[in-house]
Amino acid sequence: MHIRKQRLLTPGPTPLYPPALQAMMGSDIHHRTEDFRVVYRNVIADLKLVLGTSYDVLPFVASGTGAMEAAVSNLFSRGDKVVVCSAGKFGERWAEMTAAFGLDVTVLKAEYGDAVKPEQVAAALAADASVKGVFVQASETSTGAAHDIEKMGKIVAGTGAILVIDAITGLGTMPLDIEGWGLDVVVGGSQKAFMIPPGYAFLTVSPKAWKMAETATLPHYYFDLKKEKKNADKGESSYTPNTSLLLAFGVALTYIKSLGMDKLIDNAQLLARATRAAAAALGLELFAPGSPASSVTAIKPPAGMDSGVIVKAFKTRFGSIIANGQGSMKGKIFRIAHLGYFDFADLFAVIGELEIILAANGVPVEFGKGVATVQKVYMEAAAQAEKA
Amino acid sequence: MHIRKQRLLTPGPTPLYPPALQAMMGSDIHHRTEDFRVVYRNVIADLKLVLGTSYDVLPFVASGTGAMEAAVSNLFSRGDKVVVCSAGKFGERWAEMTAAFGLDVTVLKAEYGDAVKPEQVAAALAADASVKGVFVQASETSTGAAHDIEKMGKIVAGTGAILVIDAITGLGTMPLDIEGWGLDVVVGGSQKAFMIPPGYAFLTVSPKAWKMAETATLPHYYFDLKKEKKNADKGESSYTPNTSLLLAFGVALTYIKSLGMDKLIDNAQLLARATRAAAAALGLELFAPGSPASSVTAIKPPAGMDSGVIVKAFKTRFGSIIANGQGSMKGKIFRIAHLGYFDFADLFAVIGELEIILAANGVPVEFGKGVATVQKVYMEAAAQAEKA
Repeated sequence: MHIRKQRLLTPGPTPLYPPALQAMMGSDIHHRTEDFRVVYRNVIADLKLVLGTSYDVLPFVASGTGAMEAAVSNLFSRGDKVVVCSAGKFGERWAEMTAAFGLDVTVLKAEYGDAVKPEQVAAALAADASVKGVFVQASETSTGAAHDIEKMGKIVAGTGAILVIDAITGLGTMPLDIEGWGLDVVVGGSQKAFMIPPGYAFLTVSPKAWKMAETATLPHYYFDLKKEKKNADKGESSYTPNTSLLLAFGVALTYIKSLGMDKLIDNAQLLARATRAAAAALGLELFAPGSPASSVTAIKPPAGMDSGVIVKAFKTRFGSIIANGQGSMKGKIFRIAHLGYFDFADLFAVIGELEIILAANGVPVEFGKGVATVQKVYMEAAAQAEKA
Repeated sequence: MHIRKQRLLTPGPTPLYPPALQAMMGSDIHHRTEDFRVVYRNVIADLKLVLGTSYDVLPFVASGTGAMEAAVSNLFSRGDKVVVCSAGKFGERWAEMTAAFGLDVTVLKAEYGDAVKPEQVAAALAADASVKGVFVQASETSTGAAHDIEKMGKIVAGTGAILVIDAITGLGTMPLDIEGWGLDVVVGGSQKAFMIPPGYAFLTVSPKAWKMAETATLPHYYFDLKKEKKNADKGESSYTPNTSLLLAFGVALTYIKSLGMDKLIDNAQLLARATRAAAAALGLELFAPGSPASSVTAIKPPAGMDSGVIVKAFKTRFGSIIANGQGSMKGKIFRIAHLGYFDFADLFAVIGELEIILAANGVPVEFGKGVATVQKVYMEAAAQAEKA
């Protein structure tokens, strides 16, 4: 009908930080030169800084799943006993991947929308002292539920196992004290809270994990942690790096440092809280009310309505791209993201659009009511920030 | 405090159309080659198409003021009698410029916020048949008032004078039937409804204006309409063109063609209407209620408040750049723009932000009330569009 700006508002790829995007134009540098080494060293140093760890951080040209695989194939051996916490599509991915590599997998399953409890992990480890690894999602993007990583970390730290965390949407949306909580491997991706396009994945490796790497025998070649560390120490990557994306990464990390990682997390948590309050004000139910993540809020459509109708209307009416449910949850939830480069103006617009979409589909809506809820959350946060 | 995306929401430069911006990267072409001629011819042809005229359209590497000057210095002679309609800062610019070139200027002045009436123009022309030109703004950006160009065109068409229109913010925000209404010169700029950065200005030239150029004797060199037309007919510009901006212009014009110039105008008018309604709902007064433009809506701050406080809060609280009043109107109005690449999502956010800023400054505000007004305007327009 009229102008509809396309706005990418999904939980990954996420909205891009414009100066980072612009930096990609500078990619006419060769990756075996000092010019490149400066860029690469800075990205790794800044990643360590924002992740708050002195552990090795190793980047790979890959989707996030690539770095997940690097953890499996570098740290375990065929037949190793592992425990997978599965609370959604990405938990299922850990289960599939560890099985594909021939590990002996016990799956701790939570219903979609729920989270696996730390006590379940403790029980599984207590039952079998030979378990070598626990796999979990910090934030299960498919359902909008978060796991209690702090508790799990402290449980696993006291055992011979390592804790491997898919924090692809957890980083930048929830505190993750890597060294303090005993998080052995933390996997992240460029296209999430780091505000740049997809293409880079990375993982942190604790001393305990490095020790396991010494005896691990699963085959790997491209995803080789030891080789990658050796090259990273020289300021290079083992294979051809994605230069343009590294330039973007550098600019985005400079922005995140200036903002502060704690503020980035607070930003996501604030927007998530405002979104949950707006959903309640509009009479909508959350899909993961018990342990909601701040990366993405999964909302159920009104009874009898397919969530795809809402997702489609966001695009056709307003040009806004939001996420439907994945797999078996398609049609049953829609997901509003908060991770990375999102702000209150985005949320005012998204909730304003949602109100219209509900009304246009015959749902009784008082215009402005959801937006007003978001405004009140903003005001409370602004008042608190002024006091601080 | 948290993430604040910088959003440029002023009445020029206006928000940029991303694919146009991206096209600027292709500017490694030379301007005396066939590659360039294809680009230049297409831009001029598309400009004619969206302006709805077969008259010559001549682009210049200049600010809009440069094309205004081209009209003065190419079409008039020292001592020529002209009439200037002045209803704000840009009307004053016509008066200064025509005086600077030694024309004999009569200024028809309207109070800031008002518009000069077509009857005033008719009376001035009736009083002196030797008047050679009438100068006016289609939309006076400094006050948010619009002139009745259709009536003025028809009045001037019946005389020996030409009508010269600064339509820099008028194009794309109000209908301008160049040939049907007798509009001799229409001046536009790239950084307005055309959605690209500043750097190009252009003007249309009617046969009646070309006839005046034959006898005009004012000096000019860079802004030479005849020379520019001769070169444009060959697909080139007289002097070095801004290649990157022309590439962007081409992409933006393709988008405007696909949208339809009438829809672009309708979009601005709809957003302007919704903004006026929201201002009223929030108890704020318009600065130009009698003849409001759709390019920009000028709003008075609550009594006793400097509009600069509002403009500053938009930036510090939300990263949104909106316009204060210009010159003597600074502090007295703030301006919300609608020209070019603006959509409802922008307006939901801007009004949501405005409500917060008013409340934070002690103005009694019911959160969501202004946004709800905008939502209702959207719903009415959507219902009408469905019927059509």
